[in-house]
Amino acid sequence: MPDTYDRLEAGRAIVAAKDAKGMSWQQLADALERSLVWTTSALLGQQPLSAEQAQKVGGVLGLEDDVVVALSLPPVRGESALDPTEPVTYRLQEALQVYGTALHELIREEFGDGIMSAIDFSLEFEREPDPKGDRVKLTWSGKFLPYKVW
Amino acid sequence: MPDTYDRLEAGRAIVAAKDAKGMSWQQLADALERSLVWTTSALLGQQPLSAEQAQKVGGVLGLEDDVVVALSLPPVRGESALDPTEPVTYRLQEALQVYGTALHELIREEFGDGIMSAIDFSLEFEREPDPKGDRVKLTWSGKFLPYKVW
Amino acid sequence: MPDTYDRLEAGRAIVAAKDAKGMSWQQLADALERSLVWTTSALLGQQPLSAEQAQKVGGVLGLEDDVVVALSLPPVRGESALDPTEPVTYRLQEALQVYGTALHELIREEFGDGIMSAIDFSLEFEREPDPKGDRVKLTWSGKFLPYKVW
Amino acid sequence: MPDTYDRLEAGRAIVAAKDAKGMSWQQLADALERSLVWTTSALLGQQPLSAEQAQKVGGVLGLEDDVVVALSLPPVRGESALDPTEPVTYRLQEALQVYGTALHELIREEFGDGIMSAIDFSLEFEREPDPKGDRVKLTWSGKFLPYKVW
Amino acid sequence: MPDTYDRLEAGRAIVAAKDAKGMSWQQLADALERSLVWTTSALLGQQPLSAEQAQKVGGVLGLEDDVVVALSLPPVRGESALDPTEPVTYRLQEALQVYGTALHELIREEFGDGIMSAIDFSLEFEREPDPKGDRVKLTWSGKFLPYKVW
Amino acid sequence: MPDTYDRLEAGRAIVAAKDAKGMSWQQLADALERSLVWTTSALLGQQPLSAEQAQKVGGVLGLEDDVVVALSLPPVRGESALDPTEPVTYRLQEALQVYGTALHELIREEFGDGIMSAIDFSLEFEREPDPKGDRVKLTWSGKFLPYKVW
Amino acid sequence: MPDTYDRLEAGRAIVAAKDAKGMSWQQLADALERSLVWTTSALLGQQPLSAEQAQKVGGVLGLEDDVVVALSLPPVRGESALDPTEPVTYRLQEALQVYGTALHELIREEFGDGIMSAIDFSLEFEREPDPKGDRVKLTWSGKFLPYKVW
Amino acid sequence: MPDTYDRLEAGRAIVAAKDAKGMSWQQLADALERSLVWTTSALLGQQPLSAEQAQKVGGVLGLEDDVVVALSLPPVRGESALDPTEPVTYRLQEALQVYGTALHELIREEFGDGIMSAIDFSLEFEREPDPKGDRVKLTWSGKFLPYKVW
Amino acid sequence: MPDTYDRLEAGRAIVAAKDAKGMSWQQLADALERSLVWTTSALLGQQPLSAEQAQKVGGVLGLEDDVVVALSLPPVRGESALDPTEPVTYRLQEALQVYGTALHELIREEFGDGIMSAIDFSLEFEREPDPKGDRVKLTWSGKFLPYKVW
Amino acid sequence: MPDTYDRLEAGRAIVAAKDAKGMSWQQLADALERSLVWTTSALLGQQPLSAEQAQKVGGVLGLEDDVVVALSLPPVRGESALDPTEPVTYRLQEALQVYGTALHELIREEFGDGIMSAIDFSLEFEREPDPKGDRVKLTWSGKFLPYKVW
Repeated sequence: MPDTYDRLEAGRAIVAAKDAKGMSWQQLADALERSLVWTTSALLGQQPLSAEQAQKVGGVLGLEDDVVVALSLPPVRGESALDPTEPVTYRLQEALQVYGTALHELIREEFGDGIMSAIDFSLEFEREPDPKGDRVKLTWSGKFLPYKVW
Repeated sequence: MPDTYDRLEAGRAIVAAKDAKGMSWQQLADALERSLVWTTSALLGQQPLSAEQAQKVGGVLGLEDDVVVALSLPPVRGESALDPTEPVTYRLQEALQVYGTALHELIREEFGDGIMSAIDFSLEFEREPDPKGDRVKLTWSGKFLPYKVW
Repeated sequence: MPDTYDRLEAGRAIVAAKDAKGMSWQQLADALERSLVWTTSALLGQQPLSAEQAQKVGGVLGLEDDVVVALSLPPVRGESALDPTEPVTYRLQEALQVYGTALHELIREEFGDGIMSAIDFSLEFEREPDPKGDRVKLTWSGKFLPYKVW
Repeated sequence: MPDTYDRLEAGRAIVAAKDAKGMSWQQLADALERSLVWTTSALLGQQPLSAEQAQKVGGVLGLEDDVVVALSLPPVRGESALDPTEPVTYRLQEALQVYGTALHELIREEFGDGIMSAIDFSLEFEREPDPKGDRVKLTWSGKFLPYKVW
Repeated sequence: MPDTYDRLEAGRAIVAAKDAKGMSWQQLADALERSLVWTTSALLGQQPLSAEQAQKVGGVLGLEDDVVVALSLPPVRGESALDPTEPVTYRLQEALQVYGTALHELIREEFGDGIMSAIDFSLEFEREPDPKGDRVKLTWSGKFLPYKVW
Repeated sequence: MPDTYDRLEAGRAIVAAKDAKGMSWQQLADALERSLVWTTSALLGQQPLSAEQAQKVGGVLGLEDDVVVALSLPPVRGESALDPTEPVTYRLQEALQVYGTALHELIREEFGDGIMSAIDFSLEFEREPDPKGDRVKLTWSGKFLPYKVW
Repeated sequence: MPDTYDRLEAGRAIVAAKDAKGMSWQQLADALERSLVWTTSALLGQQPLSAEQAQKVGGVLGLEDDVVVALSLPPVRGESALDPTEPVTYRLQEALQVYGTALHELIREEFGDGIMSAIDFSLEFEREPDPKGDRVKLTWSGKFLPYKVW
Repeated sequence: MPDTYDRLEAGRAIVAAKDAKGMSWQQLADALERSLVWTTSALLGQQPLSAEQAQKVGGVLGLEDDVVVALSLPPVRGESALDPTEPVTYRLQEALQVYGTALHELIREEFGDGIMSAIDFSLEFEREPDPKGDRVKLTWSGKFLPYKVW
Repeated sequence: MPDTYDRLEAGRAIVAAKDAKGMSWQQLADALERSLVWTTSALLGQQPLSAEQAQKVGGVLGLEDDVVVALSLPPVRGESALDPTEPVTYRLQEALQVYGTALHELIREEFGDGIMSAIDFSLEFEREPDPKGDRVKLTWSGKFLPYKVW
Repeated sequence: MPDTYDRLEAGRAIVAAKDAKGMSWQQLADALERSLVWTTSALLGQQPLSAEQAQKVGGVLGLEDDVVVALSLPPVRGESALDPTEPVTYRLQEALQVYGTALHELIREEFGDGIMSAIDFSLEFEREPDPKGDRVKLTWSGKFLPYKVW
């Protein structure tokens, strides 16, 4: 099965094609009529795409057929999808390391015994202008799910 | 040096005292005149506290002296501070696993080569009412820092 | 803070007291008016117990006060709670290793893109009589949660 | 030996062919006259298939010869078969992490010193309709095996 | 709960007492009316002992009460029980590393798809006299268990 | 150097050819005039084979030349040779985990300070008929080597 | 996607071409009008290069087109970029192991709670002549970033 | 041997005493007539101190005798001395991750096959004033050691 | 069982007593009538000592009784005995990393298929005077053991 | 960049060619006018070779051009170069595990605070005839390097 694309390789082909075409992720999100973060995540391989969605992206970016076919394979969500030591990723995880127990306690106090869902979950990415240097703003929204007691 | 408290043990003593007193993290944040998340994180051991801040918390919660002394030790920020397999923590990290490469690409497109700071950083915790079940809302704000080219 | 009990140590003290008293987990479940598996899991440290529940268990088993206090500390759910190489635990995980991808595919086919919740979840333990040797029967029931698309 | 299929790659080819044909795992199970979970697990590579079974599946799905040959290679059951950090798999393992020690104690109390077999074992997958959201129901049945004392 | 013995510590106390008394493992096995390897394994903490068995051993070796109590705690069988890099242990594992795939294939050919049980299992230890240097002889006997097909 | 066989790949080619020819490991052992376990281990890649031995095996199984050449490469004995989580292998290692410290103590008592050799070592594989289900019998024989004191 | 170059492979092609041409890293730095360390790091794959910069390097070194194209792919900065056990790398990390806590304390005393940036950061490499043997001199300069308190 | 201090615990006691006395690391360096970084590293446990040096530090900081005794134990230099995930430490290591292969190549080009010593090594810590925010400046100087060819 | 010494702690007590008495390892070796390296290794916990040998060392160094008793416990030889990242240890292992495959090939060529024993093994430590700086000289001597073929 | 040789693959090609030609490592060392161990290590990929040295080896062994080119690539010295669980390698490391702390202490006593260099280092391999079985003799010689104090 060598020489076929998997979802992660298809994602890299999309980055290359998008850079070559000078398109933005927002334009691709508009083409799919989905949000910016979901679309980017889907095209990089972490969300499922239907054959139609794959065709639509393939048309916009002029992708070769093998890439289009790969886009509707099941998503790849485990640890193989990213390198935790890459500097951007690392800082996101570092923030969790510093604030994780606080978030745990705050959820326990406010909601009781349970978790913030990573499935019924959305994430917004924004540029926050700031005279001391613009900021990355991420808004996480996850449903609280209480542990079942039975 | 057994039988003295370190920052993490002092944090556990605070959770116990706070539960016994029926106080909220917000009340402790008000006592310190700091934000909710920062205060919780500091009392659990991840931010520095001055001797005065330690005294103030000690007074409000009726902590024993050894705990108060421990509160102004340097903060503990590395991996010893939390267990990544604990279910609440895990889902926060899973969200990064699913959306991490997307955030990386979006930062690269919008800001260029650089990172979102985890130091010039703040985090807000809110309860987002929702008829289908209330949600945990986290707002991350980190300064974009471009890689220096020289 | 040495010489106090944490949740896991309190769990070991309960096992010892229960064996000494010759009581069953079902009797403890009845005392708490909860199911068998949830109760066992709670008393071993993986579910929260209120102060009243802790008192009730303490009374039934004649536990010392330090253990009773420890029982209402927050639950311990991360990897520190069990040794994956212990033979009983290992076989449970081995079954997942053998059938995990099949379950993943079957969930994807039947329900679509999503997960089986481990939070809105219950587990029943039964002895299944069998002439060729009795069997352990476990019934897992977890709510299907679809990935949010937005 | 590149360019030949191994069992895991053959499994991926089956998923692709099955999706293209719009067939279900139950239809494949019917073709093999085996249960749903066993069949899915076998076709994904974790159970042995005879040459006849491989031919039968190949005929139904229109697989190329190389895939059919690979289907009767010995099964692949170790850790290379799945990624424990993939979200569906993770939650199954998390449930074991939360309930593992409880199951261990319950087996010890009910059956004595021994294990639940992962070999003389079967697993049923069902959709459990529920007005609050349908549930995944898994029924595990494993023979109790007592430790030999000699 | 410090200052009480667990099974592994009780095992170390037994080694010390046995050395001081100049007794052999065989004598202890005779006292328990069990085989040599099972008894040694049990006294070191890997098999369950009843209160009577614990008393019997305590009497023979003159153990203090705390050790006797600890001997009837549940056995400890996971990886915490031994250090795989210790030279004796290492060589046993190295033999598996060299012959493991061969044993796997031979079991597959001779018995079919299944395993050699480590539960319905016994192990004999013998000194094999040899003019070129005496040998350690280990006889493993484990029931073959076929994978269930359903 | 791709597209050539290494010892492990040659071993997999032998399994395939042997299955296709319907030959047994014992027949291959007879061809090489070596014992059953040693031969299986050698053909799977863990023992050295001379060019003549490789030719002999190649003739019997009708192997292609590239495989025959690979058979006289140096053996591969490290951890890359097997997956410790594969169920058959796992149970062999589990037995060591349960009985390892006992074997260590028994060797220390019977022979003194030293090890059981994994080099001057042989291993026999037998089917042990048993009315309650046949058993796998393994006989390990390794020379005792005392630690040198100087 | 095999047979295309990634950034690390492009870096290895540059080392080979540079050695063949007998050019120095300083000459390449001059061609790019960047500093010595930044340029070396960029050409080995850890900094972004524009298409023009890639062309310029390609011209100077006579690289094939595939390598030039790969040079403007996103940089690779995670742990896959270097082997920490390689002797040169190891000693750099060993120095951090020996002096890391000291640097942490000195930063805390001199600057307060915060970090030395690895983003707004530069590094100079010099040969320091010394009669007892020349020395490698590295000058690290990173902006101090105070933890935000809010 | 509990209740005695080891070098790392002695280091923590020094940090506490120094903070309480309001002294600086430079004052302690002056007392020992050593450089700033070496002294800090030594007092935190990574360099050897003679009994006289220990006495001198003990006198200046008013340490208890047990701490003074511990200060002349052998230094602790392995990985137990620091947590690589602590944010300050992490960024130092991240810089090596980004620039490590570049430094390796530059050393190879300038000096030939060899390493930069971490033993015949010194490190200077300075505050570098900068209108855009002061910087941490570290100057590493290590002797080049060529690989011996024989 | 806290507050008793194990072999490693007894080793640390010996280092402290030896330093306080100003004795050398050679003097202790002379007292035991064993070689220098063996004696040092034994006193640090990696070789067995008889009760008489323990008494002799205890007398010479004036050790307390608890340490003397601990000296005749079984030796501790696994990975818990040393930290591979400690700089002295690291360099010894680095030499194996650089020369390990060469030694493997040279043994294979000179002796055939087998190993150099680490049991029938001795090690000499010498100071090798050298005008360019004295050298550490280690002479390893291990019996060649051929793999048994059967 | 597939289908080219790296240093480790070139080393494997040399082993194959040398075995086919029936040459010894000593003959190759003589051709390069270097010592036996250094030469073997260099040809297996752990030392640098000049283009002339590569040519000389290529001529003697009749290597193909691609291998000759690969021989003058930079050496590969990190952990990817060997498998620590391979039996020959393991025993070398086991000896360090047993004697490592002793060597550390002996160096500290004899030379003071410092290390034995693995760079200014040589290693001799000899066969030591012995009536009880010939021995492998390795002589390590590394310059002592004292930690710099400044």
